Amino acid sequence: MFKVKFVPENTVVLAKLGETLFDAARKAGIYVDSPCNGLGSCGKCKVKVLKGKGNVNFRKSHHITTADIDQGYVLACCSKITGDITVEVPRSQESAFTTMKVEGFEGTNDPDILKGIIELAETNRIQFDSPVQKTYMELDLPTLDDNISDWDRIKRHLLKNSDFNEVSCGLSVLKLLPQIIRHKDFKVTLTYLVENDHGIRVINVESGDTTDRLYGVAIDIGTTSVAAFLVDLCTGKILAKASSGNAQIKYGADVITRIIHSTRKNGLQELQHAVINDTINPLLNKMRKELHLSNNDISVIVASGNTTMMHLLLGVYPDYLRREPYIPAFLTSEFIKASELGLKAHAESLLYILPSVSSYVGGDITAGVLASGLWAEDQNVLFMDLGTNGEIVFGNKDFLLTCACSAGPAFEGGEISSGMRASSGAIENVRIDRRTLDPAIEIIDNQKPLGICGSGIIDAIAEMYRTGVIDSRGKLNRNMATPRIRFDEYDIGEYVLAFKEEWQIPNDITITEIDLENFIRAKGAVYSAVAVLLNSMGIDYSGIDKIYIAGGIGTNIDMVNAITIGLFPDLPVEKFKYLGNSSLLGSYLTLRSQDARLKAEEIASQMTYLELSADSSYMGEFISACFLPHTEMERFPTVKEQRKIV
Amino acid sequence: MFKVKFVPENTVVLAKLGETLFDAARKAGIYVDSPCNGLGSCGKCKVKVLKGKGNVNFRKSHHITTADIDQGYVLACCSKITGDITVEVPRSQESAFTTMKVEGFEGTNDPDILKGIIELAETNRIQFDSPVQKTYMELDLPTLDDNISDWDRIKRHLLKNSDFNEVSCGLSVLKLLPQIIRHKDFKVTLTYLVENDHGIRVINVESGDTTDRLYGVAIDIGTTSVAAFLVDLCTGKILAKASSGNAQIKYGADVITRIIHSTRKNGLQELQHAVINDTINPLLNKMRKELHLSNNDISVIVASGNTTMMHLLLGVYPDYLRREPYIPAFLTSEFIKASELGLKAHAESLLYILPSVSSYVGGDITAGVLASGLWAEDQNVLFMDLGTNGEIVFGNKDFLLTCACSAGPAFEGGEISSGMRASSGAIENVRIDRRTLDPAIEIIDNQKPLGICGSGIIDAIAEMYRTGVIDSRGKLNRNMATPRIRFDEYDIGEYVLAFKEEWQIPNDITITEIDLENFIRAKGAVYSAVAVLLNSMGIDYSGIDKIYIAGGIGTNIDMVNAITIGLFPDLPVEKFKYLGNSSLLGSYLTLRSQDARLKAEEIASQMTYLELSADSSYMGEFISACFLPHTEMERFPTVKEQRKIV
Repeated sequence: MFKVKFVPENTVVLAKLGETLFDAARKAGIYVDSPCNGLGSCGKCKVKVLKGKGNVNFRKSHHITTADIDQGYVLACCSKITGDITVEVPRSQESAFTTMKVEGFEGTNDPDILKGIIELAETNRIQFDSPVQKTYMELDLPTLDDNISDWDRIKRHLLKNSDFNEVSCGLSVLKLLPQIIRHKDFKVTLTYLVENDHGIRVINVESGDTTDRLYGVAIDIGTTSVAAFLVDLCTGKILAKASSGNAQIKYGADVITRIIHSTRKNGLQELQHAVINDTINPLLNKMRKELHLSNNDISVIVASGNTTMMHLLLGVYPDYLRREPYIPAFLTSEFIKASELGLKAHAESLLYILPSVSSYVGGDITAGVLASGLWAEDQNVLFMDLGTNGEIVFGNKDFLLTCACSAGPAFEGGEISSGMRASSGAIENVRIDRRTLDPAIEIIDNQKPLGICGSGIIDAIAEMYRTGVIDSRGKLNRNMATPRIRFDEYDIGEYVLAFKEEWQIPNDITITEIDLENFIRAKGAVYSAVAVLLNSMGIDYSGIDKIYIAGGIGTNIDMVNAITIGLFPDLPVEKFKYLGNSSLLGSYLTLRSQDARLKAEEIASQMTYLELSADSSYMGEFISACFLPHTEMERFPTVKEQRKIV
Repeated sequence: MFKVKFVPENTVVLAKLGETLFDAARKAGIYVDSPCNGLGSCGKCKVKVLKGKGNVNFRKSHHITTADIDQGYVLACCSKITGDITVEVPRSQESAFTTMKVEGFEGTNDPDILKGIIELAETNRIQFDSPVQKTYMELDLPTLDDNISDWDRIKRHLLKNSDFNEVSCGLSVLKLLPQIIRHKDFKVTLTYLVENDHGIRVINVESGDTTDRLYGVAIDIGTTSVAAFLVDLCTGKILAKASSGNAQIKYGADVITRIIHSTRKNGLQELQHAVINDTINPLLNKMRKELHLSNNDISVIVASGNTTMMHLLLGVYPDYLRREPYIPAFLTSEFIKASELGLKAHAESLLYILPSVSSYVGGDITAGVLASGLWAEDQNVLFMDLGTNGEIVFGNKDFLLTCACSAGPAFEGGEISSGMRASSGAIENVRIDRRTLDPAIEIIDNQKPLGICGSGIIDAIAEMYRTGVIDSRGKLNRNMATPRIRFDEYDIGEYVLAFKEEWQIPNDITITEIDLENFIRAKGAVYSAVAVLLNSMGIDYSGIDKIYIAGGIGTNIDMVNAITIGLFPDLPVEKFKYLGNSSLLGSYLTLRSQDARLKAEEIASQMTYLELSADSSYMGEFISACFLPHTEMERFPTVKEQRKIV
């Protein structure tokens, strides 16, 4: 066994001969960024060997340059330990994860979006009556002649004073009942789930009148990040917000990598534990503490997420999601006990998850369609959720067609060498000077740049394309006289957005040809998915009346730039609207409204899913779309026009 | 702190000044019999101080003689520790508990009783269709075109091939589903609970066809002992039987003592743990192992017991059961997850408890009425369950009237100095020679006598009364020349059933005047309850067509002797029938039949409960009944006749 020391933590673990640095770091509890979960394909797990360079047997790769190697950098997942060693994990890696712990709601913080969503729901006749409600009752006091049980006394009162004729309760309610009911002389408040028109399930009993205290939580569980609202169910007011990275990220950046991890020994439990104990519970705690609420105050949780996230949340084996014919174990679930999953809430608190449509169109999309009001539109709407992967819905009140494209995590900064989420320190806007080719960048929170987020990458690529820094294949121009364009020993080019000397940062922030290739493939996947979806309906782009953009791609997305690179169809910008985290907004509506929940179930069951991999035209469309903006320039008339001007 | 050593275990614990020997023994995990749970009233916790007599500060009581004290005996609960000490706990105490671990079904082992119960149920149109059933299905294999989720595939099959239109499942079913369903190519067997005419809840999924393997357990949870059947639900066959003492006994012999214990710190959890982990789970394990079944093979458990036992089983605070106006927290419960209580069964296995009627008429009585067929009788039936306490039902198919009498544990040997349950070593029959006044005794399993059980005490008292050894007040005759009658220093008399020299046993087995007083009070409570019940209907004894006797009082009860002492009304013995453990038999029926369950719920809700303590005539009746057989001899014409003959 060899000693592996990690600095600056000074954590030492023992490793066996041949174990990778990546495994050793995981054992030590040190976070090493690894979107590919140790497969050697992403190049993100660079670490610096400080002592014992001879004790590492590393594999070369295009992710690592000779200069890197000279400085001691290796890829942790491609480096086998053969002796004692001291390793430094670059701070930027750590911060990429920790900065995700700060709030960042991708536009859902915008009160106008929330207000709009609520008004839209009301317009569409969604009533706000939460599935979990409270009722206060003053019971008859028991006597020798009226000696029915405590529970029967409650039932009798309910049957007499409500329209419900089926009343049940959970075991922990019975356990509390005798003392709670007597604490304030048979005056109690029940919390209950409305199961259907005639039946309720009591989930809590409290002494006295507590009808003004009823709280729920809406959560969007994204592959990359998780965001939540704590809601006062009496008023609908959002009392607290919280978000963080999904702690599952240590097991890989995308759903496929996570699914593969779930098939390993204890993998599924590790993933479930990461999302529940290390992600959701801390968010719940943070919000509760802000409001001085206890665990028991949370009566209901509504969650939305992609189908894989929902499998991992419930601890259901997800491996068949990724194997043809791509079958999920479940799409919908009844209300289940939150405590059964280890969520920190009252023992009988309920969890509802938004219904999914298929293996790759999840409850987050159902929630987004619900929140957007698409389901009630007369006009044709194209809805695009661009986060980790992309999902697309096209339709109106009469039909809903959906598909998923394997765009990967590029829109959220994944698979991009300097990529990061749209949080503090991310470059979110880029403009390149036509003459000097120097960039002007805007950084979230106006601090030193840490990396670049989705909207920044779109800007950068659009500007590089406009200024001729790159060509339509995403290759750098070798004939431009600027130190910002340079080529490494493997002849891979990059454009420097921020020199370390300029900003006093540890490393240059660049966009490499590999980044460009990855991003162009991602945008090509989205564009071609839209094309196939429209084709299948026999509708062309002019048939799109509105385009709603949602998801982690970021608030500050520049629609013109996104059209320029061929991510979105070339349509007037007035038709575009950014919805923010529509998954969270849909969860919020479902938390507040039974109508909304039933509507969500209707939406999920009525959506027609198109499996792109089974569509013969998709591959052709995809290949044509892997250019800036597209091989068929006539599909992008305004971009053609711009190029002429430049 | 002082050292307290218990022999022969050689267990040493530390005790504080003033701590009782009883508490020290409990801390050491040493079983000390104590029906009163340390209140000093039962006199059963005699222990012998071997070393350090001066280090015990003990209270004198009529339970302990000077001879006892000279030998070192003290009552553990009345003895405070003031220094180091070595104590011996008499073996007979331990064995009283451990012998209860052997089988002893109080007649339910009798195949004729079981056969009779089943035939009776069939005659009364009870169909045997278990609430938990299995179904085998061969599902369509999924394809890209038929890519619904695994769970939706199962639902689709059920909706197409059955009359059910509502299908739900538990979380652990979903978790297993993806792998189980593929293990044998989408051929699976579902285990499900029939919730109502149109809805089922799936509780297990297995690969392939396992429809011939479906098992359930019926349990009677008595205050003193617990008995169970493991049943093949396909055939109804009882595959295994097991019984043992209720491990709660260490917290007191009767329900009141246990309720008081439940109000102490951790008391409720200790009681719940004792019945589940230390009593029921070992019984389940024993039966499963006999049949080579796993935990997962147990799909459903049906339990019956008195109302306190049901509160303690579910962990519900029972204190208000004993406080006027005697209100239970609940009487009925839906099917609940057995695993939620820590019962060793499949994660989604269900527990159903027979509905109770009131605080002191529990699900055991509902089960007994169900099994006895009383609810379908044209004739008037008096049903008496005599175990720890006594419950009485009078009625027929048109009405059911019930009451509970606080008879205490005397019928099961409790509160009797040499009393024990009807198990190995118990004196179960006694005849006294008219001339020599020597007893002829019969002992269960023909071994050395350990004590005397309910039926033995009844015989002994009847014979002592017939032979003039005692008078109608239960006092010993001071003028009879026999060494079997003797008086102690407090002038309390006793009759020796077995001299230690005769049988080579550690102590004489006697019946004392205190035992007689206790037993007469118990039988008086039962007889007077019957009297009040009949009075309230305006019916006299001649209106009783049949008498069913059930419960721990024992198979070998001599009806004539029971009439002689005035326990039962003086009616022809042909009218009496012993039903054995009718609570267990009722559980068994409920396990096998939805009809039976619905009938049990109907019985419980239709039974009219008479609260004796609120009845003005009860006290008078009770006082008159505390004589042998009764103050009004004309109520016992055959006994009057016997006395004349003798």
